[in-house]
Amino acid sequence: MLGFGVATSPHFVGTRVVARTSSGPVDVGALAARGQVTDGWWRAGRLEEFLAAGRTAWQQVSGELDDIDVDSADQAHLGSTELHLQLPVDIGDYVDFYASRQHATNLGALLRPGQEPLTPNWLHMPIGYHGRSGTIVVSGTPVRRPCGQRRTSPETAPGFGPSQRLDVEVEVGYVVGVPSRHGTPVPVGDFAEHVFGVCLVNDWSARDIQAWEGQPLGPFLGKSFATSVSPWLVPLDLLAPVRVPVASANTSLLPYLHETDPAGLDLTLSLSINGEVVSKPPYASMFWSPAQMLAHMTVNGASVRTGDLFASGTVSGPGRDQWGSLIEIFDDKRFLSDGDEVVISATVDLGNGPVSIGEVRGQVLPAHT
Amino acid sequence: MLGFGVATSPHFVGTRVVARTSSGPVDVGALAARGQVTDGWWRAGRLEEFLAAGRTAWQQVSGELDDIDVDSADQAHLGSTELHLQLPVDIGDYVDFYASRQHATNLGALLRPGQEPLTPNWLHMPIGYHGRSGTIVVSGTPVRRPCGQRRTSPETAPGFGPSQRLDVEVEVGYVVGVPSRHGTPVPVGDFAEHVFGVCLVNDWSARDIQAWEGQPLGPFLGKSFATSVSPWLVPLDLLAPVRVPVASANTSLLPYLHETDPAGLDLTLSLSINGEVVSKPPYASMFWSPAQMLAHMTVNGASVRTGDLFASGTVSGPGRDQWGSLIEIFDDKRFLSDGDEVVISATVDLGNGPVSIGEVRGQVLPAHT
Repeated sequence: MLGFGVATSPHFVGTRVVARTSSGPVDVGALAARGQVTDGWWRAGRLEEFLAAGRTAWQQVSGELDDIDVDSADQAHLGSTELHLQLPVDIGDYVDFYASRQHATNLGALLRPGQEPLTPNWLHMPIGYHGRSGTIVVSGTPVRRPCGQRRTSPETAPGFGPSQRLDVEVEVGYVVGVPSRHGTPVPVGDFAEHVFGVCLVNDWSARDIQAWEGQPLGPFLGKSFATSVSPWLVPLDLLAPVRVPVASANTSLLPYLHETDPAGLDLTLSLSINGEVVSKPPYASMFWSPAQMLAHMTVNGASVRTGDLFASGTVSGPGRDQWGSLIEIFDDKRFLSDGDEVVISATVDLGNGPVSIGEVRGQVLPAHT
Repeated sequence: MLGFGVATSPHFVGTRVVARTSSGPVDVGALAARGQVTDGWWRAGRLEEFLAAGRTAWQQVSGELDDIDVDSADQAHLGSTELHLQLPVDIGDYVDFYASRQHATNLGALLRPGQEPLTPNWLHMPIGYHGRSGTIVVSGTPVRRPCGQRRTSPETAPGFGPSQRLDVEVEVGYVVGVPSRHGTPVPVGDFAEHVFGVCLVNDWSARDIQAWEGQPLGPFLGKSFATSVSPWLVPLDLLAPVRVPVASANTSLLPYLHETDPAGLDLTLSLSINGEVVSKPPYASMFWSPAQMLAHMTVNGASVRTGDLFASGTVSGPGRDQWGSLIEIFDDKRFLSDGDEVVISATVDLGNGPVSIGEVRGQVLPAHT
């Protein structure tokens, strides 16, 4: 069992919960109806109730799906059915972090030349901000080049038009299953009780819009036009064998950020443009783990809800061929053209060689002008 | 008809849509069931379907409610029924703007002493950021003092503990009724076709947490612990008589921000702490209007959904007794104590003297430590 998703099809009414297995996609509700998978969460054709049911339910259903072999001739096997994967959940709040030290250093040097690239807070907390959940789209959705204000030099008035510096950010996202109580922080150690699974995220970024609007309140329209996610939620417990410590484990942290169980993940990401691989960011290189992000995000009493998404921020490893955005890789000189197709994918090695855990794909449409 | 809300009561099951009329609260579904109000949106006891129905429906129902006189002896009159007003809608994305020039100037001077208080972009666009929708609470909900990281001087390491500089921000909020299409901006002139109504917002702010975390990505935990809103949504069309031009109308703006119909509002706000009025911010003094905010927020193609909330940012008029946050009024010297009760209210004069359009109330609980 490699992931859960939600699909429509010309062959059935409404949406259905689908699991991705080694033998292909299967209809979870159909398997539950004949007693092969625990029932109770599948009838509405959505994942929210299952995600809210908690880790015991997640492990039970994943185990059941691993134990059965759905033949391709079986009606519950959807391998030959036309499926349209949808957003896997109705996303509540979306938070984007900035958890790669290499990326924050690269970007700081580009955006604030001559200054210390990391702000003084960066090594003390996972820096993040809220993004727009209403414009999160599933892989395959084309993304229109945004228009907006940008200023070419401090001496001129701002102009308006299509972004000329459209970029991507390769990220890993986490989807909350079990909600927390408003007023009660989620400790680092409770991460796996609340977070159901992992997806891939392309945080499309209009660098010119972002640069002009970003002070003093941070990213807004340079990001809010679209964020793409992969359709399969990979259960966190499936990735337990590749949990690794993050770099912040070796630094001096406030107690609420101390991590006893490593919550980093050894995933190999890949960014390609029009079929050409331009980068292979290693997710194991992150400074902050998702458990630290969740602990930080809730330490002020903020609650999380089923379907909330939080993302790592751009994943950039030490080498230039491991950086996760074009502004870094091409030193502010090359961005996306209309028609470019961007694919972010990831593999994990659970002991038998690399297995894909998903991809997020999107083509750039020309701006409406 | 002064507003729409959603209430629970020990006297009925579930929630009901309630209208606030000059004779008291009335049960809209009950009036619809007997043909006095157009039916079709009330059975689920929520406002979303009515809000999505559009301006013609809003005007029709408001007119019908104005035309009937519900006697206090009538079963549909809820004046003597114990009502618990709820969040009026399920809030999608929440965006907080920064649209008062006086406030941005005051805060810039406090946070970046010796520098130009307004950032270079401020006069060209309504600056805003996304906030956390999952921690928006209705008036009356107590608010727990947040804990978090703060640093007392650039020479020391950050500490952790309850915020020592807990503040409020007096704001006006706008709730979207009719969604827009992803990829298609909402022009300034279409504001009243999309936005249903107005509420009041207390954007609780932990200034110490905010100051330490805020660079480079803006406000996060200093705001996300709670945001309080008033329970009644006041239809925008009710406020048409007090529409006024905003200050940006007299400045040079990019065409997408030009406003032909004034969309500012002449509302008198009031901030009181433990019953003592500390400020009377005049909403007519804003630099950016809500129509400009909506046009800006969507000019990159970002869509809005039914239930999205966007707020003005702190309303501060020219005089110190018109400033909308404690950090401004008391020059960074006085903040909220545990047990303090904060009330933000507003009145409008539609020709017959001031009428209340709502209040948002909240008491500070001590931090969990």
